[in-house]
Amino acid sequence: MTLPYGIFSTDDSSPRVGVRLDNQILDLEMVGRLGFFDDLSFDLAVFKKPVLNDFMALGKPLCRTIRRRLIDLLNDPEKPLDAFADFVLIDAKATTLHLPIHIGDYTDFYASEEHASNVGRMFRPQAEPLLPNWKHLPVAYHGRASSIVVSGTPIKRPKGPFLGLDQQPVFGPSNALDFELELGIVIGKPSTLGEPVSVNDAEDYVFGLVLFNDWSARDIQRWEYQPLGPFLGKNFASSMSPWVVPLEALDSVRIDGPKQEPTPLPYLQSGGRRHFDLTLEVALQTPDSPDEIVISQTNARHLYWDVAQLIAHHTVNGCNLNVGDLLATGTISGSTPGSYGSLLELSWNGTRPLTLPDGSTRTFLQDGDTLILRGWANEKRIDFGEVRGKINAST
Amino acid sequence: MTLPYGIFSTDDSSPRVGVRLDNQILDLEMVGRLGFFDDLSFDLAVFKKPVLNDFMALGKPLCRTIRRRLIDLLNDPEKPLDAFADFVLIDAKATTLHLPIHIGDYTDFYASEEHASNVGRMFRPQAEPLLPNWKHLPVAYHGRASSIVVSGTPIKRPKGPFLGLDQQPVFGPSNALDFELELGIVIGKPSTLGEPVSVNDAEDYVFGLVLFNDWSARDIQRWEYQPLGPFLGKNFASSMSPWVVPLEALDSVRIDGPKQEPTPLPYLQSGGRRHFDLTLEVALQTPDSPDEIVISQTNARHLYWDVAQLIAHHTVNGCNLNVGDLLATGTISGSTPGSYGSLLELSWNGTRPLTLPDGSTRTFLQDGDTLILRGWANEKRIDFGEVRGKINAST
Repeated sequence: MTLPYGIFSTDDSSPRVGVRLDNQILDLEMVGRLGFFDDLSFDLAVFKKPVLNDFMALGKPLCRTIRRRLIDLLNDPEKPLDAFADFVLIDAKATTLHLPIHIGDYTDFYASEEHASNVGRMFRPQAEPLLPNWKHLPVAYHGRASSIVVSGTPIKRPKGPFLGLDQQPVFGPSNALDFELELGIVIGKPSTLGEPVSVNDAEDYVFGLVLFNDWSARDIQRWEYQPLGPFLGKNFASSMSPWVVPLEALDSVRIDGPKQEPTPLPYLQSGGRRHFDLTLEVALQTPDSPDEIVISQTNARHLYWDVAQLIAHHTVNGCNLNVGDLLATGTISGSTPGSYGSLLELSWNGTRPLTLPDGSTRTFLQDGDTLILRGWANEKRIDFGEVRGKINAST
Repeated sequence: MTLPYGIFSTDDSSPRVGVRLDNQILDLEMVGRLGFFDDLSFDLAVFKKPVLNDFMALGKPLCRTIRRRLIDLLNDPEKPLDAFADFVLIDAKATTLHLPIHIGDYTDFYASEEHASNVGRMFRPQAEPLLPNWKHLPVAYHGRASSIVVSGTPIKRPKGPFLGLDQQPVFGPSNALDFELELGIVIGKPSTLGEPVSVNDAEDYVFGLVLFNDWSARDIQRWEYQPLGPFLGKNFASSMSPWVVPLEALDSVRIDGPKQEPTPLPYLQSGGRRHFDLTLEVALQTPDSPDEIVISQTNARHLYWDVAQLIAHHTVNGCNLNVGDLLATGTISGSTPGSYGSLLELSWNGTRPLTLPDGSTRTFLQDGDTLILRGWANEKRIDFGEVRGKINAST
């Protein structure tokens, strides 16, 4: 069971913590009011909050116990919740889902070798695809937390400065609006300023994972990013899934990562099964074709650096983490064209337009397009749900 | 009068809002309890908070009225506060000062032409000092909010990966720990996601300015920063002054900015007196020389882009601002070696060590060094106070 956590509201109730069960949402405060958490000694008020932060701050041992309790209740052949279904279960269709986290700081990594290599092949064709630092450390930059929105929020095409055809700066709506398929890592435990988190302790700081779309305006990004990195090309919006999958739910899909050669510095030396076998898919819905078109399918196993390495790197200089911080992996691409995690790669920087079933083509996103990311591991009954966003025209 | 706002506590009182008056702090809640704000219709609870955010969120018209009221009270020849001095005035020496803002997102710009040119001359000696985009837009990157600390907080020398003498990656304490002299801009009004703030409205979003030290580990930064910008080289700590100078206090030092050539795109076309004539100074105190040594003196007038332009650029793509966001200018350097705002420039990347009065030298900061930034405009009775930090050894 995935049992992801999110924040929902109904016409009758303000935003609060719920757990997704197929087409229903379990209201955790109501479960608590029935006495099912009475022996666990925590304040049910953590479930009546508009974000998960206070719940996550209970700490991993207690959160794990609550999850175990829910699994026991749902698996109990006597179905102890059934008698209270009207009280604890809400039809998901009757709810509104909210951004589940108050995000403090947001960091985006660049952890997929195929993605970083593809970008290098496109923009530095004469050189090695990977820059010299890439296999020695997980490259990252800080992103914008204020503009992270929940799945379903429309995305307005950003305006900004970029180089026109004559290589002179112009201002206008981006002509190269792209998505980036990523996983987000929700931090559930604070670290202390000045104190690194070791790679072996790092997973203790992870509450769970989400699907994440780091919308990108490639033309704006290309003009602005030297020498300090992306800014307006990224910070107009990012979208995250409403459901946070607790790390514990992923134990059954843990796998070994790729061999890391050269061997990274000791503070990055990880081990064990710290990668995840999760199918990730990108679908596009256009104004002319209401049917969804799958434009990419890949897998989280294509990440080079694992979650523990990202956290160990982030904190090795003493940088502190807070509950609610978000780390994202960067675009996840596989090795074949059908497995790339951005239109930049899928259309090879606009030089190889995708032909859609209705005969239309895409290099980058057009107004009215809806982009949907999904993630799952079917045999293991793990479902990340989706993150979707429709592109509205600039105003 | 500067009348900067900050957060103080005493042995008897929890952190709360105060205004600095030379050697004393005015307790604003107490002033309110005496009835001096009774006609202004706001909840005095905003002054009993451990950060200024709720006070700032009252909005600029009301904050401006409160400031005007304080000036009137302090200038009143009948000295209406004197009878209540024990009640409203606290000896600054008996207080602890706190980080005055809950910072949501932190953005650092690169807005000083001399600084950007010096960096270019050092690292790209064969090329034009400024990159092609620099005069067309205010280059910026997102920084880390969680590790921003108040003046006086010791700074632990960060460890991290960098290239050793043989150009192989090594891990250890930074050998090139630097400061950056900056001004910080505290946002006091939220903007809406998807809605740009025009350059002419931008100053309405500014509550005030602070002194800011963006500590930097140059060796770590140099190895990591391609292609996405600085990360571990910056995010271990930044320091800000405890006192926020309201924008209104700076009206008397407003000046025209430099001529901007080429003319920037229309969304950046500013005008009027939007730069500030503020003296900025950097002092160093070493373990061997208890006397402070002034190592640089410069002026905020050396910024190329003005505050309104920074905000217009930041939001032109729809990126939203929240109350408590911090924007920093980037290192402020003048055109002469004695006016550079970083040791990177003052020691020309370590090639021209500074000789101190006791005969010792510095390229970058050593353990036990204390670095102090100050800002003022004497004739105008404006004083930013200071931001200081002592370097502790790595552990």
